[in-house]
Amino acid sequence: MNKKISAVYPGSFDPPTNGHLDIVNKSSCLFSKIIVAVTDNINKKYTFSLHKRVDLLQKSTKHLKNIRVVSFSGLLADYLGKINSFILIRGLRALSDFEYEFQLALMNRKLNKRIETIFLIPDQSYAFLSSSMVKEVAMLGGDTADFVPSCVEEELKKHFANLSKFHCEK
Amino acid sequence: MNKKISAVYPGSFDPPTNGHLDIVNKSSCLFSKIIVAVTDNINKKYTFSLHKRVDLLQKSTKHLKNIRVVSFSGLLADYLGKINSFILIRGLRALSDFEYEFQLALMNRKLNKRIETIFLIPDQSYAFLSSSMVKEVAMLGGDTADFVPSCVEEELKKHFANLSKFHCEK
Amino acid sequence: MNKKISAVYPGSFDPPTNGHLDIVNKSSCLFSKIIVAVTDNINKKYTFSLHKRVDLLQKSTKHLKNIRVVSFSGLLADYLGKINSFILIRGLRALSDFEYEFQLALMNRKLNKRIETIFLIPDQSYAFLSSSMVKEVAMLGGDTADFVPSCVEEELKKHFANLSKFHCEK
Amino acid sequence: MNKKISAVYPGSFDPPTNGHLDIVNKSSCLFSKIIVAVTDNINKKYTFSLHKRVDLLQKSTKHLKNIRVVSFSGLLADYLGKINSFILIRGLRALSDFEYEFQLALMNRKLNKRIETIFLIPDQSYAFLSSSMVKEVAMLGGDTADFVPSCVEEELKKHFANLSKFHCEK
Amino acid sequence: MNKKISAVYPGSFDPPTNGHLDIVNKSSCLFSKIIVAVTDNINKKYTFSLHKRVDLLQKSTKHLKNIRVVSFSGLLADYLGKINSFILIRGLRALSDFEYEFQLALMNRKLNKRIETIFLIPDQSYAFLSSSMVKEVAMLGGDTADFVPSCVEEELKKHFANLSKFHCEK
Amino acid sequence: MNKKISAVYPGSFDPPTNGHLDIVNKSSCLFSKIIVAVTDNINKKYTFSLHKRVDLLQKSTKHLKNIRVVSFSGLLADYLGKINSFILIRGLRALSDFEYEFQLALMNRKLNKRIETIFLIPDQSYAFLSSSMVKEVAMLGGDTADFVPSCVEEELKKHFANLSKFHCEK
Repeated sequence: MNKKISAVYPGSFDPPTNGHLDIVNKSSCLFSKIIVAVTDNINKKYTFSLHKRVDLLQKSTKHLKNIRVVSFSGLLADYLGKINSFILIRGLRALSDFEYEFQLALMNRKLNKRIETIFLIPDQSYAFLSSSMVKEVAMLGGDTADFVPSCVEEELKKHFANLSKFHCEK
Repeated sequence: MNKKISAVYPGSFDPPTNGHLDIVNKSSCLFSKIIVAVTDNINKKYTFSLHKRVDLLQKSTKHLKNIRVVSFSGLLADYLGKINSFILIRGLRALSDFEYEFQLALMNRKLNKRIETIFLIPDQSYAFLSSSMVKEVAMLGGDTADFVPSCVEEELKKHFANLSKFHCEK
Repeated sequence: MNKKISAVYPGSFDPPTNGHLDIVNKSSCLFSKIIVAVTDNINKKYTFSLHKRVDLLQKSTKHLKNIRVVSFSGLLADYLGKINSFILIRGLRALSDFEYEFQLALMNRKLNKRIETIFLIPDQSYAFLSSSMVKEVAMLGGDTADFVPSCVEEELKKHFANLSKFHCEK
Repeated sequence: MNKKISAVYPGSFDPPTNGHLDIVNKSSCLFSKIIVAVTDNINKKYTFSLHKRVDLLQKSTKHLKNIRVVSFSGLLADYLGKINSFILIRGLRALSDFEYEFQLALMNRKLNKRIETIFLIPDQSYAFLSSSMVKEVAMLGGDTADFVPSCVEEELKKHFANLSKFHCEK
Repeated sequence: MNKKISAVYPGSFDPPTNGHLDIVNKSSCLFSKIIVAVTDNINKKYTFSLHKRVDLLQKSTKHLKNIRVVSFSGLLADYLGKINSFILIRGLRALSDFEYEFQLALMNRKLNKRIETIFLIPDQSYAFLSSSMVKEVAMLGGDTADFVPSCVEEELKKHFANLSKFHCEK
Repeated sequence: MNKKISAVYPGSFDPPTNGHLDIVNKSSCLFSKIIVAVTDNINKKYTFSLHKRVDLLQKSTKHLKNIRVVSFSGLLADYLGKINSFILIRGLRALSDFEYEFQLALMNRKLNKRIETIFLIPDQSYAFLSSSMVKEVAMLGGDTADFVPSCVEEELKKHFANLSKFHCEK
């Protein structure tokens, strides 16, 4: 029996970290195709624009053949139905919001019982990494080279340089 | 020995979900009278007005004889003293903020040592339900019929239809 | 509406601690009658005999009018059906096995859907107390006066005095 | 790109429950082949023999074409190397030992960095199920029809009938 | 071997509670000097000004000889490097955000591997205390005398009296 | 103010792992003297004798000047009183029994209010390490060189070689 299974890795990726990319890497070995789906929720405030987040993910995953980066708005369960792919991939850090991830997985299964969520564990060296913590470090002038790919590092520097300029002008 | 004990089930109920109503149902079998106390905290932003939240709870619990829906502002511990009822009821989902609930229960006991918090477990099918997750689904156009009573479903549709109209006008 | 509701507080109470008795006290104010049900599972090894555990609970709760101490073997869900009482009381310490308690509550509800488990929080000063920790302290010659009623303290001393005698004889 | 990926679902399955079988079912849709690997650790005491546990799993999964049930002793990481399959599947219940599972996954990755553990969530109705809880219910004479396949139910009855016979003979 | 070790206790202290002061007290016995470092993050909204928070801490700790209260902005890891002190002290409540604290400790160790975080447990009577819960109680007119030193209590009253005046004027 | 503070690091160390030794290392920088106190509880079964466990710790820590390895039986709180040292050190892994450690810390503080427990976080690479997991790996013939010092590795091999010899003889 041969299988051509695609799986979806959804997230806001604001910005993508090495932890996210580790999950993308691991996933690309497990399934025929991985769709990295960047969410755009009108009620959320993002640090980076949807366009920029998609762009950074594309740059950071271009060495992998079976990855496609897309964006979507609306209900994830609806999007999965539209593209006829029902496997969700999520990273699960020992130190992350396990309960929230569980709630989400059950809600998605309830919205469409074909949806299966698969949890992968990123390398232990990323156990403490989150987009928000990386932004906090960057904002305070810390070095983020160990935490994000270089294209993201540049954007973080640019973003927070602008921010502090605005602050100075006040 | 006969007991006529009333208990208070406090919450913001923004909006009430089937999980909340399951707790109301269970509580109504345990105590002589249940006071569902809708909080109104001036520092919080609610999706539905206090009036609407009380109204939705009244409609959803009208089949139960020993339920009264009230609203209150100020300190819960003070309100309990005023109505001379010291039993608090809270639902505890396996996947919910257990630690926050615990903190709250201990703080209330500290504010008035007569206050006893009782935790009930909603049916497993509601383990992933929360008001905010239901609103997220409704906002993105998902079906909430399984998660809330029909009067709440209508209000959710109305609310988010208006919201998207405003967004379109932009 | 008047309610005459009895509730069951099951446990192995090997031995009863001040934390258990705090839960008994709190429960006796909430329900018309509390049945403290001491389990006797042939596959478990207890430090104190069933007879002794029942006796210690009776002595420690004799100031409360609406408490009855019983023992039972077999399935708790069956026992509840036999006595027609479907409310279970369990203490929930911030530092205790929350997950196990949850599992048990769901299993019992599955075995008989009328069974409702109610969780109460013991006073914060008992947050670290467990029967096994108390036995550990007693075995090592520590003072347990703050942790158990005096009749239990005596039994602990007697038990571990005998034990060390046997050890010396070797 | 086509993928023929096999994955290993290890466990003691003492006995297999509906929760285990739900994970087998879900896994069989995700990968080309699932190897259910029954552990046999000389230091552990099992209720059912290795032969019986393998047999019960084979009977319970015979409707699935891509499942093979095997037994193994020794280090799981070594076994995976021998069969050249590096994907481990584990069920993760909201109410289960998350931390232990995490520890195991990290240890296995350390022993062989090619080993990837994938966590799946069983249906919510199995959230409270574990082999040991099922055995506890069966031992106390409770009905396990909802928790295990019928072939396991029979074995549980047989096992605990024998056990009580021995007890009576004493 | 003699040791003159200083340690840093960072936090926003908005406002300081008796739980914070308990940690300061315990720390002052462990190390030669404790630097209480009040954070000032331009992206956060504080209830009390940096000046006020430093002032309240100084008043509340003046009975301790080896305490210095300072403020800092920027990356904590950089600040520690500047003052050449690499021991961080954090309180860990049974009911607090354990996972966040862990994440922070690992991030700081990553930013500078000399940084060691030490966790202390405040007295059980402070297990439920947090700055935000204290503010909630004060805002709703509750008594905070048991939760904060008297100088903080006064400030809370002043702050929320002003707030409600503004609300009335609307 | 100069401080000459000794701290006690208690445990069963059966056997010591690299995680334990990391905590010893970190502690030796924080305090003037570290007493590694090996417990010997007559009710527990150890894999290695008390003599062997003390010996392995002494060999593994001989490069550190301010470490002393001792053994003790009886109540830890009593032992601390005898040597007049009231600081306990414990390692806290993200993936370990946090709740048990907390319970123990509170019990010890209750037994003697001068006892303060300090938690340190071992390096992330040891997050999954425990004595029992190391023994499991060794017993199954796995390589433990990354997990324990070489003197412990040898003992593990010797121990489990003997064990399997006995098994073969059956």
